[in-house]
Amino acid sequence: MSRASGAIAPLREFIVAFGRLLDSGPNEPRILSEGGALLRQLVAQGDWLPDAFAQPDPARYQQFLLHADSTERFSVVSFVWGPGQATPVHDHTVWGLIGMLRGAEYSQAYAVGSDGLARPQGEAVRLDAGDVEAVSPAIGDLHRVHNAHADRVSISIHVYGANIGAVQRHTYPAEGARKPFVSGYSNTLLPNLWDRSSEPRSTTTSA
Amino acid sequence: MSRASGAIAPLREFIVAFGRLLDSGPNEPRILSEGGALLRQLVAQGDWLPDAFAQPDPARYQQFLLHADSTERFSVVSFVWGPGQATPVHDHTVWGLIGMLRGAEYSQAYAVGSDGLARPQGEAVRLDAGDVEAVSPAIGDLHRVHNAHADRVSISIHVYGANIGAVQRHTYPAEGARKPFVSGYSNTLLPNLWDRSSEPRSTTTSA
Ligand SMILES: [Fe+3]
Ligand SMILES: [Fe+3]
Ligand SMILES: [Mg+2]
Repeated sequence: MSRASGAIAPLREFIVAFGRLLDSGPNEPRILSEGGALLRQLVAQGDWLPDAFAQPDPARYQQFLLHADSTERFSVVSFVWGPGQATPVHDHTVWGLIGMLRGAEYSQAYAVGSDGLARPQGEAVRLDAGDVEAVSPAIGDLHRVHNAHADRVSISIHVYGANIGAVQRHTYPAEGARKPFVSGYSNTLLPNLWDRSSEPRSTTTSA
Repeated sequence: MSRASGAIAPLREFIVAFGRLLDSGPNEPRILSEGGALLRQLVAQGDWLPDAFAQPDPARYQQFLLHADSTERFSVVSFVWGPGQATPVHDHTVWGLIGMLRGAEYSQAYAVGSDGLARPQGEAVRLDAGDVEAVSPAIGDLHRVHNAHADRVSISIHVYGANIGAVQRHTYPAEGARKPFVSGYSNTLLPNLWDRSSEPRSTTTSA
């Protein structure tokens, strides 16, 4: 318990810093560059994610909410990819930052043609541990993501400009029109990032 | 799961509304009056607190963090009092609102005399389900709280102007100087308030 509560400090510090960044009223390019730098710092540290939020599921990739902002300005989600798992082609409708924590993933951009069908655009981008990528309606919002590894788990940490699990968005089937999509979350419990009573700076009594 | 996630909506709506109130830059009297009205609404609804955050412990009262704001402007905590349980005399150092959800509690105010000892001030205030009380350095910050019931659990919902579990504050023994006090929290997991994918407004696909 002491260990877990101290170990998670990098995530708490990231969330406080990201909240302060948004308090300063930045435009989207600044959110993506300065927020991306904060996320790069976070995923450069390998040991802070509690095991409960790093567990794959054999049936599908997991989306564990780690924190949601009080007024839903942003959310932080741990994506856990089992071997070979992939998303459908999907959009976000808000800005998003993706930081690779463990393993690797490929993100293939898509664009919708005049016939309404989504088709791949350019080469897939490979993210390795420590890498950060961005999505948004302004810079390219559609992609399909898959675990680069067929034989091991990969984990990326995502930050979005909304409570992403509740956002009304879309998946894009290979044939036919886009479909409404609300992702929800895989977890009913979040980590408690906020208990500092076991950390060195504090003097705790058992009252 | 569907039920739990829908049932918790009043808490999510309270947190969003409280965040918006603080966004408007209110002074403390406005926080206590308008925030107090929001809390009164919340504790008027009886059914939203998940059972895991309503469990007493035979050894001592429980302090379950339900939500902390991204930049620690406020936190929301479920206090669960076993039969006859009580706090020590303590301060908060920040504003606090206390809303009675189930059962009843007594709050006895204290003041520090010129000898440095804390003594009771006036009559204890009884809070019954639906009642809301406030504390702060400006209006009276020291009190001792106890369950009004010797034979049943009582639960109150508290909101503070900080991440209260991490605040450096004090307890006041009957004899001798005040002692440093950091309360921490009883829980390592928080409820996920943010999943709306099972609620009626959304159209969820299983992608
Ligand atoms: Fe995505
Ligand atoms: Fe108190
Ligand atoms: Mg009364």
